[in-house]
Amino acid sequence: MQTQTLARSRHRSYASRPMSPSDALTETVHTHVRFDEDLALECGAVLPRYTVAYRTYGTLNAARSNAILVCHALTGDQYAAEPHPITGKPGWWDQVVGPGRPVDTERYFVICANVLGGCMGSTGPRDARPDGSGPWGTDFPPVTIRDMVRAQKRLVDHLGIARLFAVMGGSMGGMQVLQWAALYPNAVFAALPIASAAYHSAQNIAFHEVGRQAIFADPDWQGGRYWQTGRIPARGLAVARMCAHITYLSEEALTRKFGRRLQGAPKDSSEAISLFGEMFEVESYLRHQGSTFVQRFDANSYLTITRAMDYFDLAADYEGDLANAFRGTRTRFLLVSFTSDWLFPTPGSRAIARSLNRAGANVSFVEIPSDKGHDAFLLDEPDFHRTLAGFLHGCAMHAGLPT
Amino acid sequence: MQTQTLARSRHRSYASRPMSPSDALTETVHTHVRFDEDLALECGAVLPRYTVAYRTYGTLNAARSNAILVCHALTGDQYAAEPHPITGKPGWWDQVVGPGRPVDTERYFVICANVLGGCMGSTGPRDARPDGSGPWGTDFPPVTIRDMVRAQKRLVDHLGIARLFAVMGGSMGGMQVLQWAALYPNAVFAALPIASAAYHSAQNIAFHEVGRQAIFADPDWQGGRYWQTGRIPARGLAVARMCAHITYLSEEALTRKFGRRLQGAPKDSSEAISLFGEMFEVESYLRHQGSTFVQRFDANSYLTITRAMDYFDLAADYEGDLANAFRGTRTRFLLVSFTSDWLFPTPGSRAIARSLNRAGANVSFVEIPSDKGHDAFLLDEPDFHRTLAGFLHGCAMHAGLPT
Repeated sequence: MQTQTLARSRHRSYASRPMSPSDALTETVHTHVRFDEDLALECGAVLPRYTVAYRTYGTLNAARSNAILVCHALTGDQYAAEPHPITGKPGWWDQVVGPGRPVDTERYFVICANVLGGCMGSTGPRDARPDGSGPWGTDFPPVTIRDMVRAQKRLVDHLGIARLFAVMGGSMGGMQVLQWAALYPNAVFAALPIASAAYHSAQNIAFHEVGRQAIFADPDWQGGRYWQTGRIPARGLAVARMCAHITYLSEEALTRKFGRRLQGAPKDSSEAISLFGEMFEVESYLRHQGSTFVQRFDANSYLTITRAMDYFDLAADYEGDLANAFRGTRTRFLLVSFTSDWLFPTPGSRAIARSLNRAGANVSFVEIPSDKGHDAFLLDEPDFHRTLAGFLHGCAMHAGLPT
Repeated sequence: MQTQTLARSRHRSYASRPMSPSDALTETVHTHVRFDEDLALECGAVLPRYTVAYRTYGTLNAARSNAILVCHALTGDQYAAEPHPITGKPGWWDQVVGPGRPVDTERYFVICANVLGGCMGSTGPRDARPDGSGPWGTDFPPVTIRDMVRAQKRLVDHLGIARLFAVMGGSMGGMQVLQWAALYPNAVFAALPIASAAYHSAQNIAFHEVGRQAIFADPDWQGGRYWQTGRIPARGLAVARMCAHITYLSEEALTRKFGRRLQGAPKDSSEAISLFGEMFEVESYLRHQGSTFVQRFDANSYLTITRAMDYFDLAADYEGDLANAFRGTRTRFLLVSFTSDWLFPTPGSRAIARSLNRAGANVSFVEIPSDKGHDAFLLDEPDFHRTLAGFLHGCAMHAGLPT
């Protein structure tokens, strides 16, 4: 199979700059496929060629009918079910994808691709321009969720898969799922948008804007041309991550994990934060989240991808009626939301379910009780995992997949 | 009356630095009183002298029995019911305090003081150290809500008022109200903590920490010694304000005000944000909030006051039982929360009401339906205003105030 034999090559777009904490980003090897066909983007720009980095788990059956495309969230990547090559941590969906897991890789062939605009091997702001004149940086064309999906479709075609058994993902991954089902209804047997919405809300845009402003405010951002000095906007990107991270958790989860517990302030802190010689555990946790994130993520990708999410409004492409996106579809849908998710709250999923009902689609909708907030889709949630497994099993029977 | 005759003097702690956008802060004249007595702070430090800047509205009656102390929130100040001397905007509680308003200044004498640690004339990080060796900056001792209240008590004593008819305030103002009622039960006839809580939650601490990190990340913060160069950490403080501002609004309010409407990007923007030549209105609004805030607020005060809020946990001072803070009190309480306030949600007010009930206190609790979020207490909310007016009128009858 082509996917097993693709050459692995060094992806080092910003290679000329001095070493810095994010060099792990540029030095990492990613399995990828390069397309030499044009990709016309929604903004009007054309990528004359582009790369999609991806990983697969399990084995494609002879009928090529057992493939599941997993779409990642804003700061996710293709390493869904194996240790991350930079951080060494388990895959972000390790509890969902794997042998015997809800997405059982002994039964299904799982594909996960880094999104267009990302920084883990797929074409994005860190890559060289087609004319070889250095990295795109902030001149990288704005990409949309639809552009991401169209790039993925080429990968799926390239892998010789005419119809995906399922497309699934949480958060921004769920946006891609909806876009897949709308664009390619005949190529998607089942669609599972999880903890997601058909458009980005004003509040969510506002939180993204705070993150972007934090990056812009960092003088090391240097108008996005930070590869020229080798100083990355680590502090701004860390603040962006910290702010976003709060929105991924629930108040209950933060209280359960940290409450108001204090710990000693770090001794090397030159900041006036240890006002009583102590800091709250939740502060330490957030700082850790911020500082580790910058090791693995590129600031310009963060700007590009948050923008893609903000612009997502699927109904707007269908005369303002989301049902129009799905009329006549034969795809089976499972919508999942979590009770304590305030970033993509249940009403957003319910609105999608209603539109699908109006379109006459086959739709299941489950709200999972959880106090873990938006991140629940990434965490140990047995009810959620049973729901996924059950839905996929039912669809597999309908699709005639061998058990 | 002393308050009318106090000299007005220039408050210009950072006066030696070059002009910058925040010079309005240092050039503004504030009515104040200076205390030459020690103020022993909770942290163990002692302020040998300190200043409390304040404003009054209405007339103190002969019995000195009609005084209401209004406590301001994190970024508020003493200009509750008159145009702000820097921004020129109406007072922050202009709809609540004034002639014929719920807090009727034809009946009540209203006092509002800038909190200790603030930047509008009360002693804070911008002020000179007692030995004259330049501004405190981040060496300003950490103050607590209790310290703020003890400083206010001296002001109230100075004004010759033995018992306040009422103490009221929203958000951090409500924390001060609770602290007043706990520390000085015989000096508070009625207490009105609004949209507040008896402790700061892990989520709220987390949001504050993001704001602080944004300030620390700004190189113009310069370890807090920004007066030495005249460059203030405007970008970091603006990001802090933007992040906090989202938490003051509800998702409904943001959707109602802005939805997903686009507008042209500013022409002078050198940032890679106008990816489609457009930006969302909510982004423009947030930027405006951030950029205007830095004209009137000092970054080190922001650090100091957010820390004071984070450390607030009234029950912790009373063997972990909030009821102990109020046992035997004769103060009449009105607790108000707003349905869409997710920063200080209703359960926090309800928990206070329960503790007051256990303490045998006289307590009313009203949850006001509103879609305006935490900021509802500052906005046009007729139900809220009627509730305040009615409660105060009832208390005035019990207190024997002339109508």
